[in-house]
Amino acid sequence: MKFGGTSMAGTERIRRVANLVRRQQLGPDGERHQVAVVVSAMAGETDRLVNFCREANPLYDPAEYDVVVAAGEQVTSGLLALTLQAIGCKARSWLGWQVPIHTVEAHAKARIASIDSEALIAQMEQGVIAVIPGFQGVALDGRVTTLGRGGSDTSAVAVAAALKADRCDIYTDVDGVYTTDPRIVARARKLEYVTYEEMLELASVGAKVLQTRSVSLAMKEGVRVQVLSSFVEDGAPADELPGTMIVSDEEMARIMEESGMETQLVTGVAHDKNEARIVLTRVPDRPGAVSHIFTPLAAAAINVDMIIQNVGRDKGETDVTFTVPRADLARAQALLEERRSAIGFNRIVTDAKVAKISVVGVGMRSHAGVAATMFSALAERGINIQAISTSEIKISVLIDEDETELAVRLLHTAYGLDAEDAATAAA
Amino acid sequence: MKFGGTSMAGTERIRRVANLVRRQQLGPDGERHQVAVVVSAMAGETDRLVNFCREANPLYDPAEYDVVVAAGEQVTSGLLALTLQAIGCKARSWLGWQVPIHTVEAHAKARIASIDSEALIAQMEQGVIAVIPGFQGVALDGRVTTLGRGGSDTSAVAVAAALKADRCDIYTDVDGVYTTDPRIVARARKLEYVTYEEMLELASVGAKVLQTRSVSLAMKEGVRVQVLSSFVEDGAPADELPGTMIVSDEEMARIMEESGMETQLVTGVAHDKNEARIVLTRVPDRPGAVSHIFTPLAAAAINVDMIIQNVGRDKGETDVTFTVPRADLARAQALLEERRSAIGFNRIVTDAKVAKISVVGVGMRSHAGVAATMFSALAERGINIQAISTSEIKISVLIDEDETELAVRLLHTAYGLDAEDAATAAA
Repeated sequence: MKFGGTSMAGTERIRRVANLVRRQQLGPDGERHQVAVVVSAMAGETDRLVNFCREANPLYDPAEYDVVVAAGEQVTSGLLALTLQAIGCKARSWLGWQVPIHTVEAHAKARIASIDSEALIAQMEQGVIAVIPGFQGVALDGRVTTLGRGGSDTSAVAVAAALKADRCDIYTDVDGVYTTDPRIVARARKLEYVTYEEMLELASVGAKVLQTRSVSLAMKEGVRVQVLSSFVEDGAPADELPGTMIVSDEEMARIMEESGMETQLVTGVAHDKNEARIVLTRVPDRPGAVSHIFTPLAAAAINVDMIIQNVGRDKGETDVTFTVPRADLARAQALLEERRSAIGFNRIVTDAKVAKISVVGVGMRSHAGVAATMFSALAERGINIQAISTSEIKISVLIDEDETELAVRLLHTAYGLDAEDAATAAA
Repeated sequence: MKFGGTSMAGTERIRRVANLVRRQQLGPDGERHQVAVVVSAMAGETDRLVNFCREANPLYDPAEYDVVVAAGEQVTSGLLALTLQAIGCKARSWLGWQVPIHTVEAHAKARIASIDSEALIAQMEQGVIAVIPGFQGVALDGRVTTLGRGGSDTSAVAVAAALKADRCDIYTDVDGVYTTDPRIVARARKLEYVTYEEMLELASVGAKVLQTRSVSLAMKEGVRVQVLSSFVEDGAPADELPGTMIVSDEEMARIMEESGMETQLVTGVAHDKNEARIVLTRVPDRPGAVSHIFTPLAAAAINVDMIIQNVGRDKGETDVTFTVPRADLARAQALLEERRSAIGFNRIVTDAKVAKISVVGVGMRSHAGVAATMFSALAERGINIQAISTSEIKISVLIDEDETELAVRLLHTAYGLDAEDAATAAA
């Protein structure tokens, strides 16, 4: 079980978490479970500690930064162990270096290399709940490391893998993964199941429920991850699947077969307003020309996402359109202006008021016509598509930001995702 | 160098601390020094963490309590290392388990057993300043321990002993040890030197500059401790002794001889309002009678301090007077009432409005008449002495609380401690 910062914000909420943990240990299905819990710092605490580091030294040493920020999860792990004891459970905290959770690579963005789970398992077999601070580990040289912001999800999945857990339940402030943002579409449905790959695509296009790294790790290690809310009323035991289960393609196929349900073509519709569009006009249409554009951007660590090239009007010239993160727009523009003569473009046109709308679903692998449905649904309402990119299980289009909500609602309906078609409605 | 919570409260103050540390490393005496720094948590932080523990579980597991509260010093040690780096020093933090600082006995009140200083010394020899969180260590089983409130002074002395340091400078919010409380006597003088034993006696009677345990340890290990303020203006380098140096009897004797100064009979006058007086009247004057009084009090962990027994008026009966901590008065009274028949006293009279006034000085070992001076000075102004206790280097009397300040001033003058007799005045 993993609990985020909102769930751990203050002793009252930690008590709620302790009750959820105890219920899992006692076993809502009548069987006693062994439980390990991974916790985040109290909401706001990591920001407070990061600010201290910035004030102390703007060019901070990541090894010392790790010592400071790891304290947040240390506090909540001790407090949860105390609270569990207060309600009659056996529990103890295991700091990253005590487990130990071995990490490699740089401080402040370490990667978990291995977890020694023996001592942990020995205690858990005696009924002691293990409480582990997320986000932290220990380097080869014995110094404290952290995994980078949001790393607690990854800690939870890694611990679940090391313990060969039946399930990794990640409690967040949403109660699952939805077909789309329920704030935009009242008829958004909570998904019972979603595959790792769908989850990764949804995360990459703005539906941030889990840290992407944690989903990749779960896929690699085959950890069944459940996303659910710690703020549900005291009913609804977790084994009745109140959240969303993230599973492999194979398990998904089996579930579909067993339930007799038909595979949806599209699982979800996501939107992302964090991109900006850049158009370079009249770029010479010759081999190597585009590498003059994208090599310097890559060198500056600016991620280019969608790219389209219109061979066009004037022979030997082309317009190149692509997107970059909105936060990097000014930097990208300056970089390209500097290289105007090397690249040989005429004008640079930028637009930060764009949105990327994506439809995601493993079902589209085996079905044609998914893209056509998208384009015609948008065209019918006069929404102009500025760029398109596709992957095996995702189609993304770039549109005017003002049309975001309209487009999401249109597509949600077009793919038959509205709740009237399903059991559970979000609203 | 050790810095308390007030000195570490916020990044601005930590910067000030870093500057003091750098000056010590560069060497105010022209010689480069190797420096280790022990830090407390930010003022208020330990209280915040302790409150979390109490809220989580009033009967908290001290092992988990230690995990939670040790986080405060972890944060400040990382922040000081970062701040030192920001001003161009090489520095790294060493958590209790990293040094390691081995502790024994109970959690939340552990005792330092040994410190592995090899790794620390190897780094310090390369000019890296070691920053060590005070108050924490690691138990034999690899769990985090803390030394009990105020334990950072003890950490500092233990680290100084392990490193065979020339000096252990303890920076507090006062700038040294005074002949008496400067808030009571404007002419109180800062002492240049005080012996371990005097310091222990002064601490035990209310002049709380250092944690008593740290002074005992310094005496045992022969660590020269200097008490000084981190809030002095940026002048006054520490080697010009702006604080008070705590030294052995031998060093004190040598200093006195070399300087040609005459040993003072009395070094300081202390007062303590934390005691309460209990009188049991008409206790049978027979062997073993008093053990009926004090055995149950000891069993209840109530410290009895001064005891006087007046064999008296009625043959075979005696009044027994003694003091207990004011906080324990009600509990002591209830305990004694329960045992009224076993003890056989007539009445129990209590008085919480008392104060203990003590004069302390190694000089009184070799001189008679010190007590006489005290009694006559008090008698002259009509101050009634309710009880007396003495040690080799201390005489304490119990008086009415309302006369505390008057008595302290009288005695400060009577023993020639007023600043007009000396170089430096506090006011």
